Amino acid sequence: MEFRAGKYSKEFEYSYASGFFPVFELLKHRPECVLKVVFSSKAKTSEGAEKLRRLCLEKQIPSSVDDKLLVRISPKENVFAAGMFRKYYSPIQKSGAQLVLNCPENAGNLGTIIRTMIGFNACDIALIRPAVDIFDPACVRASMGGLFQANFSYFDSFEDYLKEHPKRNVYLFMTSGEKSVRQAEFQRPVSLVFGSESSGLPEDFKKYGKSVFIPQSNNIDSLNVSVAAGIGLYEAGKHA
Amino acid sequence: MEFRAGKYSKEFEYSYASGFFPVFELLKHRPECVLKVVFSSKAKTSEGAEKLRRLCLEKQIPSSVDDKLLVRISPKENVFAAGMFRKYYSPIQKSGAQLVLNCPENAGNLGTIIRTMIGFNACDIALIRPAVDIFDPACVRASMGGLFQANFSYFDSFEDYLKEHPKRNVYLFMTSGEKSVRQAEFQRPVSLVFGSESSGLPEDFKKYGKSVFIPQSNNIDSLNVSVAAGIGLYEAGKHA
Repeated sequence: MEFRAGKYSKEFEYSYASGFFPVFELLKHRPECVLKVVFSSKAKTSEGAEKLRRLCLEKQIPSSVDDKLLVRISPKENVFAAGMFRKYYSPIQKSGAQLVLNCPENAGNLGTIIRTMIGFNACDIALIRPAVDIFDPACVRASMGGLFQANFSYFDSFEDYLKEHPKRNVYLFMTSGEKSVRQAEFQRPVSLVFGSESSGLPEDFKKYGKSVFIPQSNNIDSLNVSVAAGIGLYEAGKHA
Repeated sequence: MEFRAGKYSKEFEYSYASGFFPVFELLKHRPECVLKVVFSSKAKTSEGAEKLRRLCLEKQIPSSVDDKLLVRISPKENVFAAGMFRKYYSPIQKSGAQLVLNCPENAGNLGTIIRTMIGFNACDIALIRPAVDIFDPACVRASMGGLFQANFSYFDSFEDYLKEHPKRNVYLFMTSGEKSVRQAEFQRPVSLVFGSESSGLPEDFKKYGKSVFIPQSNNIDSLNVSVAAGIGLYEAGKHA
């Protein structure tokens, strides 16, 4: 099979996981989607590469040394291994904790949030458009491959999300929230909702559920969204 | 005054804050260090630019429209304003909460951690070498200008840090920690210690204080360090 692989574009039907750890996660959780694994000539005899090559043989996935492809995928960083995979559909489930991001802008933040979700046993993430592409290699990378354990769905509006997922306990994280996250009860099934990097959640989202704030000083505008989501998941996890 | 400004290098005696919010923070907290403020021609009549220009006049700081400089500073992003500032020395204080990063590798994570610290009323950060440059524009940017409210000191080893800052309650964040962060008492004055992105804290750091872990699933290797630091600061803040 030949792939005209290069710098990623969201129109592609495939994407890349770069770095040994994310590639192992890809092979473990989505082996049916893997098209190809490539190594850097610098790493081809490393322990990680040997282990990965054996795994590819076992799962009948093509693997090869391909420095040129690695440079095309990631021109700025030294990447020693990458996995090319077909994009897939893995929609969120009705039960269990859900994280909702309204108009996320940054692929790195999205990936970091997914990594944290998986760390706190939440697998389902809803993205309200306009939203960054979850298969952006920067997201895959920042998730450390956690993406391959996650389910995700896109919605055109928060109301569309609620229509498909009614009867949830919705907690809206806003600096102007009514209750401290420390006092929130986080009744299940929980939906934790966070706004965009540039503007947070609109005030009128308060009608959709309980608004909560993370106690913080006035010396910053707000916390980074991936830090806020980490604290939200951590607190909600106490009530699990 | 003329500056041969361009892509940042850590040998420079100056650095840049990019984006309106970080530039305002720079002018507010370190006005004596500002060399120059530049705007994009696209933003020169915006409300933010007007406000910033008035502030520059007031503080007798040169300001101008300079698209070329903005592109040189940040070739990939659309930046509408930047402040060039002289690097300064602002060492950590003996009292109060301190955050210690052992060998931090990523400027963006460092900046995000500083933003979070300021949000949780902690101003002092110790960096154990080898460590990323705190004045890297990517750190300034990720801190959202929070850097300008922070004090920082570099040390060659953790022991050097302890020598200068004895009698502190040291909490070491490790996935193999002995006590859950939920049960930790965080006695003051507190030092919260986090390891590097690639390898966390070495096991033998346990001799330096109390090791704590953030409860998390086995489905990830660890949390991102800026998320872990956010949760640590949030928990320690409860005991303030």
